[in-house]
Amino acid sequence: MTSAPVAPSWHVTRWFNSAPLTLGDLRGKVVVAHAFQMLCPGCAMQALPQMKRVQHMFPPERLAVIGLHTVFEHHQAQGPQALEAFLHEYRYTFPVGVDEHAQGDPLPLTMRAYAMQGTPTLLLIDAQGRLREQHFGVLEDLALGTALGGLLAEADGLPPAR
Amino acid sequence: MTSAPVAPSWHVTRWFNSAPLTLGDLRGKVVVAHAFQMLCPGCAMQALPQMKRVQHMFPPERLAVIGLHTVFEHHQAQGPQALEAFLHEYRYTFPVGVDEHAQGDPLPLTMRAYAMQGTPTLLLIDAQGRLREQHFGVLEDLALGTALGGLLAEADGLPPAR
Amino acid sequence: MTSAPVAPSWHVTRWFNSAPLTLGDLRGKVVVAHAFQMLCPGCAMQALPQMKRVQHMFPPERLAVIGLHTVFEHHQAQGPQALEAFLHEYRYTFPVGVDEHAQGDPLPLTMRAYAMQGTPTLLLIDAQGRLREQHFGVLEDLALGTALGGLLAEADGLPPAR
Amino acid sequence: MTSAPVAPSWHVTRWFNSAPLTLGDLRGKVVVAHAFQMLCPGCAMQALPQMKRVQHMFPPERLAVIGLHTVFEHHQAQGPQALEAFLHEYRYTFPVGVDEHAQGDPLPLTMRAYAMQGTPTLLLIDAQGRLREQHFGVLEDLALGTALGGLLAEADGLPPAR
Repeated sequence: MTSAPVAPSWHVTRWFNSAPLTLGDLRGKVVVAHAFQMLCPGCAMQALPQMKRVQHMFPPERLAVIGLHTVFEHHQAQGPQALEAFLHEYRYTFPVGVDEHAQGDPLPLTMRAYAMQGTPTLLLIDAQGRLREQHFGVLEDLALGTALGGLLAEADGLPPAR
Repeated sequence: MTSAPVAPSWHVTRWFNSAPLTLGDLRGKVVVAHAFQMLCPGCAMQALPQMKRVQHMFPPERLAVIGLHTVFEHHQAQGPQALEAFLHEYRYTFPVGVDEHAQGDPLPLTMRAYAMQGTPTLLLIDAQGRLREQHFGVLEDLALGTALGGLLAEADGLPPAR
Repeated sequence: MTSAPVAPSWHVTRWFNSAPLTLGDLRGKVVVAHAFQMLCPGCAMQALPQMKRVQHMFPPERLAVIGLHTVFEHHQAQGPQALEAFLHEYRYTFPVGVDEHAQGDPLPLTMRAYAMQGTPTLLLIDAQGRLREQHFGVLEDLALGTALGGLLAEADGLPPAR
Repeated sequence: MTSAPVAPSWHVTRWFNSAPLTLGDLRGKVVVAHAFQMLCPGCAMQALPQMKRVQHMFPPERLAVIGLHTVFEHHQAQGPQALEAFLHEYRYTFPVGVDEHAQGDPLPLTMRAYAMQGTPTLLLIDAQGRLREQHFGVLEDLALGTALGGLLAEADGLPPAR
């Protein structure tokens, strides 16, 4: 567990619901992030509603909920303006960053840096900034809660476990 | 009931999942239509999944499931190209018509013709082309089934009831 | 459809939530009945909650919701006193009849008369007292609603369809 | 947290799905117990299905799932024989203890020892045998998972937190 890698930096061109944000800014908090696309059904119907439940369960100073809009298809339909309308209509208030595209590459940079297989992808980052879990798909609430409970217990001043 | 009005014509600029379609083409079938917007949460999370359930429960020669994309806000984000991506990602295979806009009016023509209050709006049209029910929001499955069962019984050769 | 059989009489030793009741008393109404056992999970978790939804959707003068306690196993644990506690705790207020046992037969009489395969079993009886549908298990709300809508349309003064 | 009390002993007259069991036997494991009554709707429809989900998520050597049948009403209908039929029908395979009644007292001994207000009541006991949480009702899966994740992190060799 002490060998868990530091989470790769995020490449974000624009933030919604937040001033620009880096992983360094979140040090000291447990971070739950979902990489999503606004037109991906599993994202819109499962992952993001779960993020809203998580957001309302924990105080923001202990746990940060983040969305990363990692568009790798339907780029025209999922631009920042469309995303803004989506976030507004669904009343999502947690920070959402738009993953950056390098010239000519359909996959965005953060998605590549984490070698994500698709959307939604869940990232759990501990209070020390290490990537502790990456999961393609959506965890059951019970499993996600268990993972968060463990990371929060650590963050409450515990030395790394196991 | 015999006084139910003929359903107003639809003004559609483009059809997905179908050749151009008019209410006249559907005469003889019960029609269940939902007016929706792709970025409206109640549409994406409730109304359209319900339409898919209805579509799979009845043979298409008895009952037609139709979507009408009645965009009245976020016009840029909800254009035909975005709608096409949305329908593809959610695997919706029933016909969907794009409601037409008159110059300068944010509300589209069919939405105005039916005096809809918003999205989703359910339309139930009987086999004789009459608008029998219009409902802003989503009916429970039990209530929708009851309405459909009544219209189908009529369509099976029964004279209008009540 | 005109060949649908008259529903077999019910053999009930005791009624809860009602004075003694026969199928004849219900003539003129559509009848939705579920044969159940209080300790059958599909009954307690699906069929009976659905009956409650049906009960609240239709006026009692048009549609009667009935439970039949057809105990064929765990007879000791599912006696009338246990059933009374069960109905009280779950707040079921529709009439429930206790299916009668002949000496030495674990299967009760009504269950035998309808040749039921187990619990829950749904019975749909039309306003003329004919058994129109019998289904082992629970129908989806959409399918049950459709069946009820058809029977109610008939009951509203329509001659039998098809 | 170090001041959390040792969980009161359980008074059990009979175990299902297990040899006789004490809290001492469970030392070293996190314990999730639900006090329930088989005819309590919130128990049968929410608490016990959640216990089954928890049971299947964690290895039994790390986490023990326990039911306590704390009957305080409908004593006749909820006796051990009825409970046995209930557990069999619902396929519950975790240990369930029958809470003991003192002469003339409708409330059983364990229920009194924990001053429970009703059923279901959730008990979370840490690996050191201390009662860490007692909750009348059912927690959301996310909240229960979080609590379990914290207790499991502690049990994995961590000194008590906070």
